[in-house]
Amino acid sequence: MAKPTSSHKPVVCAPLLYQQTLHYLGTFQCYFWELSFFLLQLSLTDLAVYGVLRLYGVRSIRWSRIVRPIFLINFAESRQIRRAFRSIRNTLPEITYVFLLFMFSLLMFSLMALKLFGERNLQTAEGLPYFRNYLEIVFDLYVLVTTANSPDVMMPAFDFSSWYALFFIAFVIVNTYIFMSLFLAVVYNNYKKHLKNEIRKLAYMKRRKMIEAFNLLKEEEGEQFVVREARWKQLVKLVAPDTSNSHRELLLRISDDEQKGFIDKKSFVQLADLLNIQVVTLKIRRHPLARWAPALYGSAPSWLLRRVVRHRAFVWTYDAIILVNAVFIALDEESPFISYAEWVFLALYMIEILLKVYTYEPREFFGKTQFWNWFDTLIIFAALTATILNATLKSTMKYNSQQILDIVFILRVLRLIRIVDSIQRFQVIMNTLINIVPTMLTFGGLTLVVYCVFAIIGMEIFHGKIQSFPANSNAPHALECGNPALKDSLFARGKYCKNNFNDFASSFIVLMELTVVNQWHVFANAFASVTAQPAKLYFITFHIVMVIIIVNIFVSFILEAFFVEYSLEKSDVETAIEQKIQELGVGVQEDELQHEQLLDNMESAEHEFAGEGGTKPQSKGLVFKIASKRYRTVDALLQRMFEAEIPLEDDGPSFEEILNLSPTSAVPRSLSSEGAA
Amino acid sequence: MAKPTSSHKPVVCAPLLYQQTLHYLGTFQCYFWELSFFLLQLSLTDLAVYGVLRLYGVRSIRWSRIVRPIFLINFAESRQIRRAFRSIRNTLPEITYVFLLFMFSLLMFSLMALKLFGERNLQTAEGLPYFRNYLEIVFDLYVLVTTANSPDVMMPAFDFSSWYALFFIAFVIVNTYIFMSLFLAVVYNNYKKHLKNEIRKLAYMKRRKMIEAFNLLKEEEGEQFVVREARWKQLVKLVAPDTSNSHRELLLRISDDEQKGFIDKKSFVQLADLLNIQVVTLKIRRHPLARWAPALYGSAPSWLLRRVVRHRAFVWTYDAIILVNAVFIALDEESPFISYAEWVFLALYMIEILLKVYTYEPREFFGKTQFWNWFDTLIIFAALTATILNATLKSTMKYNSQQILDIVFILRVLRLIRIVDSIQRFQVIMNTLINIVPTMLTFGGLTLVVYCVFAIIGMEIFHGKIQSFPANSNAPHALECGNPALKDSLFARGKYCKNNFNDFASSFIVLMELTVVNQWHVFANAFASVTAQPAKLYFITFHIVMVIIIVNIFVSFILEAFFVEYSLEKSDVETAIEQKIQELGVGVQEDELQHEQLLDNMESAEHEFAGEGGTKPQSKGLVFKIASKRYRTVDALLQRMFEAEIPLEDDGPSFEEILNLSPTSAVPRSLSSEGAA
Repeated sequence: MAKPTSSHKPVVCAPLLYQQTLHYLGTFQCYFWELSFFLLQLSLTDLAVYGVLRLYGVRSIRWSRIVRPIFLINFAESRQIRRAFRSIRNTLPEITYVFLLFMFSLLMFSLMALKLFGERNLQTAEGLPYFRNYLEIVFDLYVLVTTANSPDVMMPAFDFSSWYALFFIAFVIVNTYIFMSLFLAVVYNNYKKHLKNEIRKLAYMKRRKMIEAFNLLKEEEGEQFVVREARWKQLVKLVAPDTSNSHRELLLRISDDEQKGFIDKKSFVQLADLLNIQVVTLKIRRHPLARWAPALYGSAPSWLLRRVVRHRAFVWTYDAIILVNAVFIALDEESPFISYAEWVFLALYMIEILLKVYTYEPREFFGKTQFWNWFDTLIIFAALTATILNATLKSTMKYNSQQILDIVFILRVLRLIRIVDSIQRFQVIMNTLINIVPTMLTFGGLTLVVYCVFAIIGMEIFHGKIQSFPANSNAPHALECGNPALKDSLFARGKYCKNNFNDFASSFIVLMELTVVNQWHVFANAFASVTAQPAKLYFITFHIVMVIIIVNIFVSFILEAFFVEYSLEKSDVETAIEQKIQELGVGVQEDELQHEQLLDNMESAEHEFAGEGGTKPQSKGLVFKIASKRYRTVDALLQRMFEAEIPLEDDGPSFEEILNLSPTSAVPRSLSSEGAA
Repeated sequence: MAKPTSSHKPVVCAPLLYQQTLHYLGTFQCYFWELSFFLLQLSLTDLAVYGVLRLYGVRSIRWSRIVRPIFLINFAESRQIRRAFRSIRNTLPEITYVFLLFMFSLLMFSLMALKLFGERNLQTAEGLPYFRNYLEIVFDLYVLVTTANSPDVMMPAFDFSSWYALFFIAFVIVNTYIFMSLFLAVVYNNYKKHLKNEIRKLAYMKRRKMIEAFNLLKEEEGEQFVVREARWKQLVKLVAPDTSNSHRELLLRISDDEQKGFIDKKSFVQLADLLNIQVVTLKIRRHPLARWAPALYGSAPSWLLRRVVRHRAFVWTYDAIILVNAVFIALDEESPFISYAEWVFLALYMIEILLKVYTYEPREFFGKTQFWNWFDTLIIFAALTATILNATLKSTMKYNSQQILDIVFILRVLRLIRIVDSIQRFQVIMNTLINIVPTMLTFGGLTLVVYCVFAIIGMEIFHGKIQSFPANSNAPHALECGNPALKDSLFARGKYCKNNFNDFASSFIVLMELTVVNQWHVFANAFASVTAQPAKLYFITFHIVMVIIIVNIFVSFILEAFFVEYSLEKSDVETAIEQKIQELGVGVQEDELQHEQLLDNMESAEHEFAGEGGTKPQSKGLVFKIASKRYRTVDALLQRMFEAEIPLEDDGPSFEEILNLSPTSAVPRSLSSEGAA
């Protein structure tokens, strides 16, 4: 039985080497703390002014509320959000030029539309005047850029003459297709440039710190300076205390290839990269049952059972069961036969998990990187709990809790997702999707900050203007969302009354709908008609900030994540480690220990490819294995991608140069020679 | 006066060197011709069957019509369209996997939606049952992926309980944001990979052909094989007969750097690249007026006038005039003062063009690469013609032709565009936009083919089902687009009746609206209700083909074009030519000929930067200049980008290998040494 111990430890946290890095990060932290302090003062002043005015009966606007969400980016864990904000700030100048050109195009087309359609006395489908007022044309055409009012905005002109369709076709091609792609191009280009720059800075920083550490620890040996084995071991223990002895030994064998008892500068500098590579130490450990009841566990039926569970057919059987289950879920719920079937399926899934735990070592089965095992077990146990709870409530209190039922339904469907992992071709896609989850949370944070700011502004402007009523309410203007100004509007007709800015939750949902873009002009027109026309600016601003900038950064990020995933191969350092593992494995292969490794479907597939001899057991009962690419973060992949570009001998520029690196300037090569005096 | 002669000649057409290339392109041609022949037979068979059936009174479907648009891609000039089709064919396998995963996600979410909302007895805003039928849910959620029915599809559930919004938020994040970006990522990745592969093939092909040519022409000279000057000149004359003598001399001086009278292999191989670089030969030619009336043209007032026109303030003045003109256009047309102002502006623009032609040499002013001069002159002359025509009609027949007026309005607004070219920062963007126009036409062709296929199918299925009536028609069902099935539908209420498949033009406009996506479900539902439910498949298929594949390729293309434009610097070969021009310029600088070059705004700006001494006149009255980057095609830029990656000494793989190069395999380096025996 083997247990994977993940010895991954980001070297950035090491006390000795990375004080400077921390200091560097600290300057940003400081900058943000100063900003926070300023904001705090601002809020207090505002509060005081508001309080005093309130005493005299004047109701003023608490404008400092708007800046409060900026506190959010000061959470300790929001380094990523700050980075995203920096990325946006850096993108702004270039995007501004494209935006100005886009506005110019919009204004020109609006002018043309005014001249072409303004004096035709046309009417929209709602009977309103069509294309009379220049500012309204600009708004309508801006909405057309987002495609939200296509084809309605075209129909009156198209009905008048088919030729006018050409105007709208030209408009859509130029503005929707070309300019919107241009925004994506500019955002993506900047995103990539600045990301590369930040990662380059980090990579150089690491190189330089390693050289400084080498200079502190070096001793003279013949003609060169080296670090002796004992000191090196001491350092690794200090820097990465979780590393197992055997893993440390492996690293030493790689760094000191010829077993000379010391490590030279070039190998020493590699240490950070070596420690960053996730080497899984597979301890050949017996199953707990094999220790407690060896006779039973080792018996022929037990052995057969374990062979069955490890067979591919076992996976296929369960894939078939999942498919049958999907059909049952889609069928009508009311039939008692089907609700019994649900228990059968639950039982089958439980049996599957128990069999797997019986066959594989439990600590390995629930290892850190076993995403699907965790997913399966959690879903099944949650479903079991909820189903039992529901059945109990039903039989004792004759009451079906809707919430619990909803959860049961969702869990039941989620169970089916696992089938995707059985199909090899979907795995690259799924891996990337799992990899990008952490960074997606960054975007969640970013979106949260932007939503907060806009929700607060929205609540200041639109609070209470639109009311939502129950379906059969008798309140006056219930059909017009409580505001006579909305009579016959698209907003009231679409029954959108619940989309308002009356509380935080509603505001967030309205902003989400605005992010999705469709029908945003209906919202803008409705809120403008219940307050004042300039209120449309709020919606346009939100569209520019959220859709043109943030959604495009999100898309850039996903594009980049997939390109990295598609293009990346194993790094040199990884290859070196793997070679060493192979060499050592061959060198020490003494006993033919029956080696039962945990392999989930995917890993076993990998193994078949590499040949079963890929990981040979060592005398110490240890097997090493480079962790598969699937659970790495995009950042780590990118960092490695760039590191591959720096030659190992290059010391890189000095700290001041690193901190001032601009994304456009290449690293000054002339300076790279005068490092590490 | 100087006249630019563009000596750009793609070497691919050269008779001696590129037979093989032509043969290679020919195989594709052949493939398509065979396909065409097959299609022709198909069409004839179909025609015969149709005719026979018609004789017996049976009306069958002319199904071969659908394949006819494929003939379009056999136009002689449609090599680009064929390449785009190949690119799509290559992308299909990978996109299929993403699509299957996306469908799986869609089906899972639909199942969840059925379980969560199916038994709540909810109703949509139109009073229809909400989320009852599984297939309808799948369709509704597919529409939500395209955002076309957001937020309507959410509102009933959201009104029931706010928590259900979370279901739709999760759906939109997973499917709209992540999966749609994934489609773009896959399409872009493949597009780039295959584009690079094709260009790599071409580059290797060129290299190899050049080496073969060298082997044919080589003579022994000392220890090495070389091509003698006379033979080289003969070759260049044959290959690029348009090249001027002086340009050929320049190329010779670059190839035979040390004037040894022969060209070695390395320099010879460069010839194709040298010929591909657009060297502008600025002939210092006198203005025609200076030849016909030298006294007048050389007089002090004339000289002063020419200085004024060349001054930056002249440009600024006209920019100001354009702005004033924009204000006048926006103002009301009816006032006589303003219609007189229009004549003033027209006169001012005419004067500008005349002054420029007076100052600069006319043949240079209307040079091939002077995009804005052409644009200006055409617009102004068209506007003048149309305005005069309109005024004549008005005064003689008291009749305002609407078509002419419309054209006048459009031309008047288009005139304003020129102001963009005055602002330095907009020029990169404008250059790229101008550069991508040729390839945009490819996409136009591609879209045309797809539209044709879908228009023919659409006309077969939906012809005559929906009628359009004039605004105040008394026909029965005029409000329901002539079909009682559409009573109270969103289609009839939105007055979309003119969007039908009754003729080719209408079909194209409907397909354009479907490409823009918004409201496509309204179309799908309407056409499904007047024919049969499976008709929705037509709309879904169109969405997948057009929006998911072709629009994404278009976006990829624009992204790539901008990245290339942002990242590209001058190539080595170009630098060599420029150096040589500088050297020769310095070497022959004898007379201080007054050198009046045509510089449009942008080029003069470049010159200020490079210093006025950048292009010194030669004794022969010739000045060379590398054509600025602005009028190059994306293909040429990409080709150069890749060529920079092949070392000059590398002969590249053999022809068979080149033709079989797959986009994933790197070029086999081991084979590159055994070239050119």
